[in-house]
Amino acid sequence: MTKNILAGCLARAERHFADKPAIIYGDRQLTFAQVGEAASRLASALATRLGVSKGGRVALLLPNCPELTIADWALIRAGLVRVPLNPRLAPAEIEFMIQDSEAEVVVYGSDFESTVARLRETSPTLRHCIAVGAPGLGALAWTEVLAKGDPDNFHVDTDMDDLYMILYTSGTTGRPKGAVTTVRSRWFTVFTSAANENFVEESDVMLHVASLGHGSGTKVLNHYVKGATNVYLPKFTIEEFCQTVEARRATTTWVVPTIIGMLLDFPDRSKYDLSSLRTVVYGGAPMPVERLKKALATFGPIFVQVFGLSEAPHPIISMGKYDHIHGTQNQLDRRLSSAGRPSLGVEVRLVTEHGGEAEVGEIGEIAVRGDNVMVGYWKKPEATAEVIRDGWFYTGDLAIADRDGYIEIVDRKKDMIISGGYNVYPREVEEVLYGHPAVRECAVIGVPDAKWGEAVKAVVSIRPCQITTAEELLEHCRKYLASYKKPQSIDLIDELPKSPNGKILKRELRKPYWDARRRSI
Amino acid sequence: MTKNILAGCLARAERHFADKPAIIYGDRQLTFAQVGEAASRLASALATRLGVSKGGRVALLLPNCPELTIADWALIRAGLVRVPLNPRLAPAEIEFMIQDSEAEVVVYGSDFESTVARLRETSPTLRHCIAVGAPGLGALAWTEVLAKGDPDNFHVDTDMDDLYMILYTSGTTGRPKGAVTTVRSRWFTVFTSAANENFVEESDVMLHVASLGHGSGTKVLNHYVKGATNVYLPKFTIEEFCQTVEARRATTTWVVPTIIGMLLDFPDRSKYDLSSLRTVVYGGAPMPVERLKKALATFGPIFVQVFGLSEAPHPIISMGKYDHIHGTQNQLDRRLSSAGRPSLGVEVRLVTEHGGEAEVGEIGEIAVRGDNVMVGYWKKPEATAEVIRDGWFYTGDLAIADRDGYIEIVDRKKDMIISGGYNVYPREVEEVLYGHPAVRECAVIGVPDAKWGEAVKAVVSIRPCQITTAEELLEHCRKYLASYKKPQSIDLIDELPKSPNGKILKRELRKPYWDARRRSI
Repeated sequence: MTKNILAGCLARAERHFADKPAIIYGDRQLTFAQVGEAASRLASALATRLGVSKGGRVALLLPNCPELTIADWALIRAGLVRVPLNPRLAPAEIEFMIQDSEAEVVVYGSDFESTVARLRETSPTLRHCIAVGAPGLGALAWTEVLAKGDPDNFHVDTDMDDLYMILYTSGTTGRPKGAVTTVRSRWFTVFTSAANENFVEESDVMLHVASLGHGSGTKVLNHYVKGATNVYLPKFTIEEFCQTVEARRATTTWVVPTIIGMLLDFPDRSKYDLSSLRTVVYGGAPMPVERLKKALATFGPIFVQVFGLSEAPHPIISMGKYDHIHGTQNQLDRRLSSAGRPSLGVEVRLVTEHGGEAEVGEIGEIAVRGDNVMVGYWKKPEATAEVIRDGWFYTGDLAIADRDGYIEIVDRKKDMIISGGYNVYPREVEEVLYGHPAVRECAVIGVPDAKWGEAVKAVVSIRPCQITTAEELLEHCRKYLASYKKPQSIDLIDELPKSPNGKILKRELRKPYWDARRRSI
Repeated sequence: MTKNILAGCLARAERHFADKPAIIYGDRQLTFAQVGEAASRLASALATRLGVSKGGRVALLLPNCPELTIADWALIRAGLVRVPLNPRLAPAEIEFMIQDSEAEVVVYGSDFESTVARLRETSPTLRHCIAVGAPGLGALAWTEVLAKGDPDNFHVDTDMDDLYMILYTSGTTGRPKGAVTTVRSRWFTVFTSAANENFVEESDVMLHVASLGHGSGTKVLNHYVKGATNVYLPKFTIEEFCQTVEARRATTTWVVPTIIGMLLDFPDRSKYDLSSLRTVVYGGAPMPVERLKKALATFGPIFVQVFGLSEAPHPIISMGKYDHIHGTQNQLDRRLSSAGRPSLGVEVRLVTEHGGEAEVGEIGEIAVRGDNVMVGYWKKPEATAEVIRDGWFYTGDLAIADRDGYIEIVDRKKDMIISGGYNVYPREVEEVLYGHPAVRECAVIGVPDAKWGEAVKAVVSIRPCQITTAEELLEHCRKYLASYKKPQSIDLIDELPKSPNGKILKRELRKPYWDARRRSI
């Protein structure tokens, strides 16, 4: 008799779809029964052999691979708290997260042997290190741990308020904070993300290319519980992506806008049969409007946009397939530059700086209330109280709603530039720069300026085989932007600094300017 | 700032899809904005003008019509408890339900003027009668009540544990009991029924032919909150059904198996374009296997089966489109005579008479646990304690699961016949009778028998233009059934007695035999 509702859904899938492929990873193929058995073994080994009690934190330091999902399901079964660590994080960041979360266990891939060796010395709470692959000194082998476990649907009781995950924010504005969500949040998003994004049928095949620790990974569970197949790409290239869609007849995928751009630009695209794709969910970064129009013209109305945060898993705001194509040209022009409308199941408000509800066309901070929202930051009551007020989570994102309720993200509150008393929203300037054919990526930041307080600066990388100059780009901006918004300088660089999730780190770009200023004071 | 989560979903739909048709009823067409305004007006009039406080019961005595949905949404907004009354109920039954639920308000259609006049005398709690149509003496006119209301998104706060509905059981075994469900149950079924049955998209059009007070009506909300259109048929005929599917390009419908039979038998079917139908949900009665096979061959894999009860709204058990066609012939043969497998989001067990879990192939009573289950029978703690034990609701339905987990409903526990010490399950005998081409409907019951305790008796109605005799049918049964299961007598009658929901009332058939026996003792 289980009171572990997520484990119940897993067990159901493993019974109903026993011999069906659950996970495909390159040439490996695991059935639902195999995944279920492995997850049950790991769960019971953790709980009974290794003595990790309910609520204990287990860090996962793995690339996209079947073991990551098996570990996820094991943690659900054993009532343990998942701490996903992006493999692209720096060793010092990993160390911080292990220590901060007081993780008792880390499950890691063989690339991280030296990192883990160090963690064992620096992290007093860390009792067990389980290596997927050959274990180093003092570590346990994944296969041996599993061999000691109970293969038969092991689980411990949990309820809705038990902790499910500590997800560290990408830390674009400082030290990462751990967003804590409960079983209730996960349970809620299994159903509401299906209702808001795309329904899952048994015959669906989802291709995962983004990190399973984050966005794309949240969809694995929805597919698994319905008996659909999840396909993981060992290594992303656009050829590999197209080949796999064709070979696996993938129906669904989750991508950042950059990948849609790569797909549109891929000269060999027409060599592949991509017609099985019926839902492409995109999010994680702004989608340039012209790209989106081209994607709709090329692939048809298969796109769904989602907006969410570590602190409030998506979708907070979403734009379905229907909304991408129905409406007057005028409506669509506004809408396609938006993130969509409040999703079903959550409440969203735009709050002005005076605390009132923003009017149509007025800028406000996005606040959200719903079961998807975190209960708080791990061991940071003050940081929590700053962002959760009266039951609403304040996202730090500024936005404008149009008459139809479509919400356009204007910018991160902290990225806003104040120049000569005027508010400048970097996204608006970036959107203009993206309108120039030579611009590959760009970031607009505020730098110290004696006269204006802050000056607008753009940092731009150029697309291959394109030539342009800072002067030409400034001229382009002048055509579309008021003079106070126009960058006062543009730097061309090869590659913009990014977080492990692929987000541009404006902090890094701003740092030298503000450090220099501090030194000069 | 709302804490009324269902009202929040309604308000979202009314804002997002304002000018889209929400309800189509014959020539009437109401947009989301119109439905929303009317519901807000009625909610505020009930709460503030008529003084019906949160938790008050409001009976709805209306045929399928837009006002029924407007009233439903008004009750959600005002935190009032819905008591749906089937228009086909007898006046004495209606009176019982009004009195038992202590309803303060009844909203009624003009056909019920005389019933309501009597209710006013016999039901002391009834304070307001609102007539859709011309009001009788002392009643209020719907239009006048609405005119006094607030058009602008009125709602009161509710939480998940507040009562949502008292739904009276069809009373096939005695006096109806009121199954009480909460906001949590309704909220849960909005998402899980979509995940289990069919996803709703903005472009969907659902055609409702069954009573909106029951099964089909539970789907209105799912469609409404997603911005899909609900079409109500003023009067059901199979021509009207086909015409409306074609005219409205209906994508989804919910029917009892009889209607699928009517559709297959309808000689003019090919004159209509029914190709827009992508999901036909069926339930409420057993589906004869041969009919189902013919339906799949005729319409393709668009069928979804659901099983649920007043006490635990469906789907408790369901069979999706995929399950109707994937599998070996052997698997499919077993499966198509089942109700499907436990639905996502609920837990189902088959419990033997000794209280253990039934093995594969063993008969057990279906027990269910999940947020959809009622909190209990209205003011009947003993009846509640009989059916809800240790958090599980015992449905009274006996079933067998096969190796793949498909659950075949054997019979109602109370309909089981014990003849000469053997258990006879009427459904099994009925399925054999349905295999005879002349049989339109049948019911198998136990009647008193001096020698065997109970004897097996069948009551049969014959299809138009068919001729058969009791002897021929007995001969047919002898071919397929063990002698103790074979009916000892068969009565041919014109029409089997039915409940307002179309369920055959075995109680009525059994009554004369058992009454006679009682008299003779």
